[in-house]
Amino acid sequence: MSEKTAVSPTRQEDFPEWYQQVIRAADLAENSEVRGCMVIKPWGYALWERMQAVLDGMFKATGHRNAYFPLFIPLSYLEKEAAHVEGFAKECAVVTHHRLEAKDGKLVPSGQLSEPLIVRPTSETIIGAAYARWVKSWRDLPILLNQWANVVRWEMRPRLFLRTAEFLWQEGHTAHETSEEAVTETMKMLRVYETFARDYLAIPVITGEKSESERFPGAVQTYCIEAMVQDRKAIQAGTSHFLGQNFSKASGIQFQSRSGAVEHAWTTSWGVSTRLIGTLIMAHGDDDGLILPPRVAPAHVVIIPITPKEDTRAAVLEAADNLAAQLREISYHGVPVQVEIDSRDLGGGVKNWEWIKKGIPIRIEIGPRDLAQGTVALSRRDRPHKEKAFLPNGDVLSGVTGILDEIQAELLARATAFRDENLKVIESKEDFYKFFTPANSDKPEIHGGFALAHWNGSAAVEEQIKNDLKVTIRCIPFTDSPEAGTCIFTGEPSKQRVVWAKSY
Amino acid sequence: MSEKTAVSPTRQEDFPEWYQQVIRAADLAENSEVRGCMVIKPWGYALWERMQAVLDGMFKATGHRNAYFPLFIPLSYLEKEAAHVEGFAKECAVVTHHRLEAKDGKLVPSGQLSEPLIVRPTSETIIGAAYARWVKSWRDLPILLNQWANVVRWEMRPRLFLRTAEFLWQEGHTAHETSEEAVTETMKMLRVYETFARDYLAIPVITGEKSESERFPGAVQTYCIEAMVQDRKAIQAGTSHFLGQNFSKASGIQFQSRSGAVEHAWTTSWGVSTRLIGTLIMAHGDDDGLILPPRVAPAHVVIIPITPKEDTRAAVLEAADNLAAQLREISYHGVPVQVEIDSRDLGGGVKNWEWIKKGIPIRIEIGPRDLAQGTVALSRRDRPHKEKAFLPNGDVLSGVTGILDEIQAELLARATAFRDENLKVIESKEDFYKFFTPANSDKPEIHGGFALAHWNGSAAVEEQIKNDLKVTIRCIPFTDSPEAGTCIFTGEPSKQRVVWAKSY
Repeated sequence: MSEKTAVSPTRQEDFPEWYQQVIRAADLAENSEVRGCMVIKPWGYALWERMQAVLDGMFKATGHRNAYFPLFIPLSYLEKEAAHVEGFAKECAVVTHHRLEAKDGKLVPSGQLSEPLIVRPTSETIIGAAYARWVKSWRDLPILLNQWANVVRWEMRPRLFLRTAEFLWQEGHTAHETSEEAVTETMKMLRVYETFARDYLAIPVITGEKSESERFPGAVQTYCIEAMVQDRKAIQAGTSHFLGQNFSKASGIQFQSRSGAVEHAWTTSWGVSTRLIGTLIMAHGDDDGLILPPRVAPAHVVIIPITPKEDTRAAVLEAADNLAAQLREISYHGVPVQVEIDSRDLGGGVKNWEWIKKGIPIRIEIGPRDLAQGTVALSRRDRPHKEKAFLPNGDVLSGVTGILDEIQAELLARATAFRDENLKVIESKEDFYKFFTPANSDKPEIHGGFALAHWNGSAAVEEQIKNDLKVTIRCIPFTDSPEAGTCIFTGEPSKQRVVWAKSY
Repeated sequence: MSEKTAVSPTRQEDFPEWYQQVIRAADLAENSEVRGCMVIKPWGYALWERMQAVLDGMFKATGHRNAYFPLFIPLSYLEKEAAHVEGFAKECAVVTHHRLEAKDGKLVPSGQLSEPLIVRPTSETIIGAAYARWVKSWRDLPILLNQWANVVRWEMRPRLFLRTAEFLWQEGHTAHETSEEAVTETMKMLRVYETFARDYLAIPVITGEKSESERFPGAVQTYCIEAMVQDRKAIQAGTSHFLGQNFSKASGIQFQSRSGAVEHAWTTSWGVSTRLIGTLIMAHGDDDGLILPPRVAPAHVVIIPITPKEDTRAAVLEAADNLAAQLREISYHGVPVQVEIDSRDLGGGVKNWEWIKKGIPIRIEIGPRDLAQGTVALSRRDRPHKEKAFLPNGDVLSGVTGILDEIQAELLARATAFRDENLKVIESKEDFYKFFTPANSDKPEIHGGFALAHWNGSAAVEEQIKNDLKVTIRCIPFTDSPEAGTCIFTGEPSKQRVVWAKSY
């Protein structure tokens, strides 16, 4: 089994297909018969629940509360912000009728609506309408709300988690008295996302601002966190938008200011979605399947009773239960250690492989011989699958949180090293094209990675690069010491190097 | 202020309007411009989050896991179960297009779908399709899943929380090897709902089976919990359905049984929704607003600093912070005591009334004089609003969970007494009509309450009563000793008395 991998093809052989197979092997999700809509299976949904719990805590700790707004947006609302509707018009699910009627023995849509309703692709306009009702005076500001919801964007090339017609997300929407306050909020939430990605997902992200052509439709500025995954492509894993007064003017969010004048509020929005699950898979998975960072893993430890003989089965299962009970009393960063017991009457190898594929951080085998010795065999998902440590029970209990922290740190270290190796300063157009041109045309995914290169700020240049190489500016990264230079494409002045990459 | 109530009209004056005004006074939710779709505001959503947390724990403790299934159901799926589509056809939001296109300067739906998609009114058919893919052998059963989701049923007469076009709910869907197992599951989850209603919402519900005419479309048997609210009407607060093999036949959920034969699975579904919030408001609210049972209250205690003078303001606020910090370290049934501090620079009366209307269980005032004495003034939401206990800080800390438990018990006792007073055995048709005919035609809501009366099992009788009195059978209640008798409408034999009421 040493040569065989649990997932086929391997990452080297076919990264996009490897990704689909990991999702299948870990039993995270699957396509439904409804085009682009996925079924999120229990292990995948439990991962999302962990992410939600952590993010929700971070949002509340920064003064936000949750609320819930309608699924449907009247077409006329969407149209209020010109750039916004332009951005979403091509991918809207449109509700036109409110019942079904039998006609010639077939059920057909009936009860046509006087105004079509759009299934929310995002909620700036419907939430803006509520804020316009609620805000009268500067005393009503700021409004700091978030909602956990499903949204729909009709995707022509869906891919599980990364790009689905329906997806789950959170969208924060805030309204402020001043531009400065709104900008501060935008940046604060970007930092929340960056912290979450690093400390929980073990993914080092690059933070920065999007170029104008990559902005959220209707935003004044869009900030993002960009992750590099193992095929060296970028994934935009979260965004935070400073919306200026665009949406408050469109929705009429006005207030009487401290000076008595009537002013428009300044708004922001920010969101992350189930796309984070796709990012996590691509950032950490290996050829044996998913690898879960312990701080978002639905379960930390699986205990695998090895019960080859009927006469010792009961005793082994009891020892497994006892160990699980003791582990569950241990707190790991504020949550109890989560333990699964796989007591199915199957061979240890079969059970082990299932949990390897599911990415659980720690596997503990207990067999009849261990009972007498008071030991167990412990394996870590970040180490070769055959590596086992034979430990006394007591050491497992005293060491479990330390091992989880080590795994967490190891995953971040690996991802950071990989990112740093594949992030290159590129100083000429020729090198840039070479960097992004696959050496082997059979493997278009093999290319340089992230390029840091000077750019003159022109959208025409971006367009050209996108057409030539399918490469875009991922962000204009934040830097304390921007280094001016010369655009490698035009020779014109450049304020700083920007991050270019292929992306999902 | 002793004569004035915070909410107008009072329950006596106009119960339906009182309900709307409590929602407004407590700032729980409001109508949006999208017909029948509500905005759930932070205080209302926080209440839903508490309910979710408790229920989710109960579902997981009974072996269920969460998953997520598509929002959209192909029309052909809905049609697979004849009674089911018949039941929902008249209230479906139908998606017919997947983009918008400019035409004569206007945006219009474009990209017509080859098959219309229905926004899920419930998910039996779309989840059934997934189960059909997953189940091959008896070893794959049972499947015990739940999803938290939004659903849409086009309501012609929407009412906040009780009946909205879009609402939030959970829907459990399980598949089993045998009929017995599925029936056991159906009953188990009904008991979970009953327990939740009693021990958390402080609402005593009647459990029983629906008559055939009130069954969920496609179910073999529907069980329910029925609450009585303060206008003596019934609210169906939760349902659990035994679906037999109806949906597994429609969806093709087949498995190889232990004997090798191919069989259809036995399925169940069960759900509660944001309707529980409406039930809670109507069950416990008074003429001063909402009253929250402590075990689902988003916050248990509000500390109201009284700061009439600038020179003592800082010291009072500090004392409030200290007390809050100490309270938050106390555990109330497994969750930390949740404390709000209302430090707005407003008068104590204004602040008190706001929290009375919001229904928070305990209000604590701290003023400059209290500082010197080390006391506070404590008021309970279940007592007259002027009643205050002057307590040393230490007594507050040692007594807070006891007081919360007392409030919880008091609310249940009140609701139970009210229900019992208004639940009458009715032995003749004449008495039955009198029971449900309002003495005062200006107040159609004033009627007897719940009637326990013998019935011959005929749907025609139900239909007649519904037409005459707008009264329906709420359930055939579970009883250990069914008492046979004579139908009061027909003189025919009756197996047991059933519960009749007007309902929401």
